[in-house]
Amino acid sequence: MRARGLDALLLTSLPNLRWLTGFTGSNGLCVVTARRSVFVSDPRYTLQSREEVQGFRRVISPRGLFDTAAENRLLSGCRSVGFESQHVTHAQYRTMRRIFGPLSFHPTDDLVEDLAMVKDNGELALLRQAVRITDDAFRHVLEVIRPGVRELDVAAEITYFQKRAGAERDAFETIVAGGERGALPHARASSRKLRAGDLVILDFGCTVGGYSSDLTRTVAVGKASIRARKIYGVVREAQAAAVAAAHGGMRARDLDAVARTAIAAAGYGRYFIHSLGHGLGIRVHERPRVSAMSTELLRTGSVITIEPGIYIPGFGGVRIEDDVVLGEKACRVLNTAPRELIEV
Amino acid sequence: MRARGLDALLLTSLPNLRWLTGFTGSNGLCVVTARRSVFVSDPRYTLQSREEVQGFRRVISPRGLFDTAAENRLLSGCRSVGFESQHVTHAQYRTMRRIFGPLSFHPTDDLVEDLAMVKDNGELALLRQAVRITDDAFRHVLEVIRPGVRELDVAAEITYFQKRAGAERDAFETIVAGGERGALPHARASSRKLRAGDLVILDFGCTVGGYSSDLTRTVAVGKASIRARKIYGVVREAQAAAVAAAHGGMRARDLDAVARTAIAAAGYGRYFIHSLGHGLGIRVHERPRVSAMSTELLRTGSVITIEPGIYIPGFGGVRIEDDVVLGEKACRVLNTAPRELIEV
Repeated sequence: MRARGLDALLLTSLPNLRWLTGFTGSNGLCVVTARRSVFVSDPRYTLQSREEVQGFRRVISPRGLFDTAAENRLLSGCRSVGFESQHVTHAQYRTMRRIFGPLSFHPTDDLVEDLAMVKDNGELALLRQAVRITDDAFRHVLEVIRPGVRELDVAAEITYFQKRAGAERDAFETIVAGGERGALPHARASSRKLRAGDLVILDFGCTVGGYSSDLTRTVAVGKASIRARKIYGVVREAQAAAVAAAHGGMRARDLDAVARTAIAAAGYGRYFIHSLGHGLGIRVHERPRVSAMSTELLRTGSVITIEPGIYIPGFGGVRIEDDVVLGEKACRVLNTAPRELIEV
Repeated sequence: MRARGLDALLLTSLPNLRWLTGFTGSNGLCVVTARRSVFVSDPRYTLQSREEVQGFRRVISPRGLFDTAAENRLLSGCRSVGFESQHVTHAQYRTMRRIFGPLSFHPTDDLVEDLAMVKDNGELALLRQAVRITDDAFRHVLEVIRPGVRELDVAAEITYFQKRAGAERDAFETIVAGGERGALPHARASSRKLRAGDLVILDFGCTVGGYSSDLTRTVAVGKASIRARKIYGVVREAQAAAVAAAHGGMRARDLDAVARTAIAAAGYGRYFIHSLGHGLGIRVHERPRVSAMSTELLRTGSVITIEPGIYIPGFGGVRIEDDVVLGEKACRVLNTAPRELIEV
């Protein structure tokens, strides 16, 4: 804050609030100055915030969060206030300006996100728990996958398993995409029934203590065709090559290039239509971006996904994804779910 | 647009995009001018948007959405462009300004939301489907609730049931709050085991075709205490009074007052710590707000929730919630889940 010439920070992003204060509710903000740390919420969260939020003065009011902050003079004595430009809407910004008239507001980007990018041991423990539940859910759901089962039944089974295993929730909407639907990288589970010969992409994760896992495996229903095995092999080798190459200190785009080059060399370059991966933690997609355009340096202690894929319209797709912790010279793969092509 | 002096609208909110174009993906924008309607997304959604988006020219590019819109000159010939102030972050706003330099940008509020507030028959059919699944899930989960079962097992069962019944997903994170946890209006399901004598608040919903249901029932595990029955009766009567009073054309705060007055008259006024309800549709919380401060007029054809509650720290809580369609002189309750106190 001092380096940026700010007297105060106004934080409103819920994942960032949770990271900073422990609050898991749906409405809150936090003001940090050199002398004060204050948390604001509404009466639905009086009891909950008392349990969750430590080390902050708590102010609860049924009025709007900004109004409450103003009435309680939480920014008094401040002139220059930083706010989370990527999370404050233009409408909220106008409200802030109206309510706190004479203050000067300065957009900040990635302030908490930068701090949250390198994980400590407590955070890694939660990530490992989430990953373990997700890996177990994959092994479990193999027993459910067979011809005639709807994609959404498979998705329901995954969610049920993860929740009963202690996950707070699915980290994102489970993708189950069989046969030609596998060519849609972000297909939701549909009522389509699985058929013998389908490749099925399963992409799911769960959240534990606010930290999310993200796993993709592609399995064959019955015997995989020669073409399916070929494509699977290309993705598997590209994924393994990227895992072998990943470490802190390298440029994100250089890691992306490892997988992209391998897939292009096999002749499938135009079918790898998304980036290699993304940071993982208090958000399912967080920094760093691991794309062909990302000049960011990967940092030791970050957790990222490595998830190349090939998507062929009319045929289907293959994607294999692991979550890894970046070390100085290599990375550690958190997932234990098998990577060979499983024919169920 | 003409009334507001706008040459173009730039829409970026995903629920609004879905409402307008049918697109269900996670990245898109749409430009509407007097002569063009263009939808923009990235290559992950090439096939999906071809299936989903009708009546719009489609532009797909791996670059940022605003960059793609600029490169394809989608705003050429425009001077005055409206954007969704409540959904565009301050950072996105700065990006827009940088990329589209000389254009003049005008914040709009609730433009699509206003149109989406009154439901047509197709929308009501989807809402009814979502409500039916949720009601069925409630009846089903009564068989699961018993002493010793964890809240999160109950939540998992609800999710599993709804998904298998055809819901796209839970409309929001299921609340299962037993005993003293019922005093936290937004308690997540925890690993707490249900105990004989608990009141348990169940608050959940699901999404069908983009439209969400939202149901709350409170049940007793075993025999309810006299105090529990008393409080339940107060909430039930307040809820019934508000349902009986609701219609299009009245002020939202007047409807809130019906339930609030009933609860206050019984001596529990200070324990009803949230608003009476909210609009329901393409978002779980949408306009109108039905609160003590909302001067908005309720509109015939809107769907709202009516959900008073009483929350007593150290004891627990009761909330009863139905989804209703507002008619000109009355409302129609969509839910069929029983409202009497069930002792399971």
